[in-house]
Amino acid sequence: MAAVRNILFVMADQLRADYLSCYGHPTLQTPAIDALARRSVRFTHAYVNATVCGPSRMSYYTGRSMSSHGSTWNGVPLRVGEPTLGDHLRPLGMRVALVGKTHMSADKAGLQRLGVSSQSIEGTYARECGFEPYERDDGLHPDVSVDPDLAYNLYLKRHGYKESNPWHSAANSAEGPGEELLSGWYLRNAQYPARVAEEHSETAYMTNRAMEFIREAGDTPWCLHLSYIKPHWPYIAPAPYHAMYGADDVLAANRSEDERRDPQPVYGAYMRHEESKSFAREDVRRAVIPVYMGLIRQIDDHLARLWHFLEERKLFENTMIVVCSDHGDYLGDHWLGEKELFHEESVHTPLVVYDPDPAADGARGSDNDALVESIDLAPTFVRAAGGPLLDHIFEGRSLLPLLRSAPAEWRDAAVSELDYSFRRAGLDLQVPADKARAWMMRSKRWKYVRYEGFRPQLFDLENDPRELVDRGADPSLASVRAEYDERLFEWARNRRTRITMSNEDIAKRADSYKRRGITIGEW
Amino acid sequence: MAAVRNILFVMADQLRADYLSCYGHPTLQTPAIDALARRSVRFTHAYVNATVCGPSRMSYYTGRSMSSHGSTWNGVPLRVGEPTLGDHLRPLGMRVALVGKTHMSADKAGLQRLGVSSQSIEGTYARECGFEPYERDDGLHPDVSVDPDLAYNLYLKRHGYKESNPWHSAANSAEGPGEELLSGWYLRNAQYPARVAEEHSETAYMTNRAMEFIREAGDTPWCLHLSYIKPHWPYIAPAPYHAMYGADDVLAANRSEDERRDPQPVYGAYMRHEESKSFAREDVRRAVIPVYMGLIRQIDDHLARLWHFLEERKLFENTMIVVCSDHGDYLGDHWLGEKELFHEESVHTPLVVYDPDPAADGARGSDNDALVESIDLAPTFVRAAGGPLLDHIFEGRSLLPLLRSAPAEWRDAAVSELDYSFRRAGLDLQVPADKARAWMMRSKRWKYVRYEGFRPQLFDLENDPRELVDRGADPSLASVRAEYDERLFEWARNRRTRITMSNEDIAKRADSYKRRGITIGEW
Repeated sequence: MAAVRNILFVMADQLRADYLSCYGHPTLQTPAIDALARRSVRFTHAYVNATVCGPSRMSYYTGRSMSSHGSTWNGVPLRVGEPTLGDHLRPLGMRVALVGKTHMSADKAGLQRLGVSSQSIEGTYARECGFEPYERDDGLHPDVSVDPDLAYNLYLKRHGYKESNPWHSAANSAEGPGEELLSGWYLRNAQYPARVAEEHSETAYMTNRAMEFIREAGDTPWCLHLSYIKPHWPYIAPAPYHAMYGADDVLAANRSEDERRDPQPVYGAYMRHEESKSFAREDVRRAVIPVYMGLIRQIDDHLARLWHFLEERKLFENTMIVVCSDHGDYLGDHWLGEKELFHEESVHTPLVVYDPDPAADGARGSDNDALVESIDLAPTFVRAAGGPLLDHIFEGRSLLPLLRSAPAEWRDAAVSELDYSFRRAGLDLQVPADKARAWMMRSKRWKYVRYEGFRPQLFDLENDPRELVDRGADPSLASVRAEYDERLFEWARNRRTRITMSNEDIAKRADSYKRRGITIGEW
Repeated sequence: MAAVRNILFVMADQLRADYLSCYGHPTLQTPAIDALARRSVRFTHAYVNATVCGPSRMSYYTGRSMSSHGSTWNGVPLRVGEPTLGDHLRPLGMRVALVGKTHMSADKAGLQRLGVSSQSIEGTYARECGFEPYERDDGLHPDVSVDPDLAYNLYLKRHGYKESNPWHSAANSAEGPGEELLSGWYLRNAQYPARVAEEHSETAYMTNRAMEFIREAGDTPWCLHLSYIKPHWPYIAPAPYHAMYGADDVLAANRSEDERRDPQPVYGAYMRHEESKSFAREDVRRAVIPVYMGLIRQIDDHLARLWHFLEERKLFENTMIVVCSDHGDYLGDHWLGEKELFHEESVHTPLVVYDPDPAADGARGSDNDALVESIDLAPTFVRAAGGPLLDHIFEGRSLLPLLRSAPAEWRDAAVSELDYSFRRAGLDLQVPADKARAWMMRSKRWKYVRYEGFRPQLFDLENDPRELVDRGADPSLASVRAEYDERLFEWARNRRTRITMSNEDIAKRADSYKRRGITIGEW
């Protein structure tokens, strides 16, 4: 496994699986990601373990389900001591760094309880989810809460953007005919070009920063998490990407009038969210979706630049490269905006894994339809870097056997989770904060979603791949629902919480009493 | 609630509920605990959340189930950052100290990862499960692994016990006719008096140390965990307790020949353990059980001394006092020794709670048959001390409503857990380390035990209170088993892992986007 020396872990934010040309989009061309896919394994059934940025990312970064890492929503601190990718890779000699977004919130109370200094190296890693924050930027910097030291703003100011918060006034705003700002927060302004030059946009800047890191790292093995904040809203793109696609490129919404009749109650409450009502409008979809596409194409163009940079340095020879996303975007499908629920538009994500090891040559350019999850990446990286199994911590499984065509029995269902206590839907339904939970279990045939306190959803993916007919109350499918409840119970029983002692150590310890001179129950 | 200023949290190790006179033992008299019970609430249905010392104690000290705190067996470190009783009580102005045993193993790797100095105050609390280690002593100090600085050994040496490890040679050994040591590790030597004077025994010493702490604490509010290492094996007692009870006091074993015919496989494997084979012998029971009783009576006599000490200082006016145990002891019942499985002899423990608050006067001297769990004590202490609800961390519930006769809807089943991967049974059955799990759910009527990978046990407690007939495979009770599986699933879904944000804070945050200037999905 020595062939993997570095890891480039690229994530896009809110990128649906089907909005890449290699995943079948008919008019959105993503040649750089497609080119990588031709040298990689393209996973056709990749699922995120949580459908919201923060918890999804924490699952990627810990290799553990949302229930286990406990950071159940954006802004919920990852508890101190929860082991991260950085904690596992650094002892293997790697520099583990971040450029872009993690959505990590530090557990300040926990760090204080342990007397961990915020100035120490260890404290920095703990606050930054195990990453060296080479360039930390979660995006979303409204005037009322912008960090005055935001590096991207300082960069923009150096390049002539003179306003106090050019993130908003330049990158997140367009300009009206009277030179007034048209805020990118409003969907109605998506059609206009951002006031930032493309070369100074966030996507360009973060790509540059990734290259700077790679140059700087030199001969030290590294794992770089390049985490773009786009195509996540605000949906506003610099020229020419704001106008690269048009209303003709907008696919018909995947929804039916039947879905609005007596929907499952949590689903129904999400339909009443502001973003859902907006995306239910066809004029909104036609204005916004082309810009969403432009933002994706922009990322792809910068990845082309990055691939070129890597080729020049022969880094494709020893660098594992992943392109993935933290969740999708409904864009009006199923009468919803945003993400969070478990239709494919939200929970199904792209996953392309390039493995430089010659053992992976046999699978290059192929598709793999195994049900893989975001928690599989951390163990993949650790194993690729020659690290231990850590199967008492990781709930995901290394993808190496799938990449290297080794025989592997694989899971036959993927699980994802939601805590909607922070959202309007939870308030509207008057659900107590600790009961606003849902779990999806998806096999090749069925998708089952269990809600605490509400009736489930069930989709027959074979006969209804677009998930338009909820069979959650169909009496003829009671046995399917019972089977998936039983399987979710099994899943719940198997969460990894004994993280301080490995399975191998337990085998060694089975006789430890004797070794310590302790005798039990001998006459 | 200002009446509770101090908390005295007394635990005995391996003390069965039915081995106290106030819990109905016919010949073992425990007048001090009985006297406390007359001023307290005596819980008749108290259950430990794990049936092994370490995990059971971690549940007491964290208010969280074994699955949640993750310290699933003796020696499995409690993960760094897992919040403890001390973490919750200290901010309320209390000194939180330990005299005796916790069975805590520090998460050294986790502390190192965070750069927590082992010399810092915070590091000490983290290593000692949140307690100030006024006197930490887990018992069990065989010659091959004894700590040369063991305080109890230094104490014995100051009192004339000259051997290198008087814990073993004096407190844990008797003397044969030729002055040879008869090791307390062997059950055959239980009948002889230990070579230590009673006043220098561990039970006496720890009681003295508790008094020293209380004197030293003075006017500072305190929570003292006085945690006796007895009547846990080695079963050896100083005179006169070694001979206070005789074979006539040994109750008939609660077991039937039927239990040995085709037992549930894990139960069957435990029957083959050394300690089970020993306690299956009637001569062993008749030799050992009287000494087990003597050790209990000895604790009771020292508690009488402690109660007197508290009365002199008027501490009954402002001190909550709890007497409990970490699990029971089979003593040959059901053909088993030790504990770990879920028969009443193992999982049912005594619990006496004295509440000094006048609001508790109405319930003094009464019994309460609510199904209470060890995880209820930590929230009880925090609420009694005026602290917050912490119901995003605690999985137990404050007992204050039950103590103060306030109306309270209560749980109707108790849960307990086992990880037997460290034990011979797990090896014999060739169970992988992460599959050696069992869960008990006990209501007033039924006790259901689910084993990963093996058939369940089911007892009808109404018609078979002695648990001699396993109905786990009875076809007529399939619906009961299904009901308890469904309830265990619900329990598993409701573990508290979002420990970094309270339910109250979530209610406040539901609109935080707007406050931060972020707009989602508005046209």
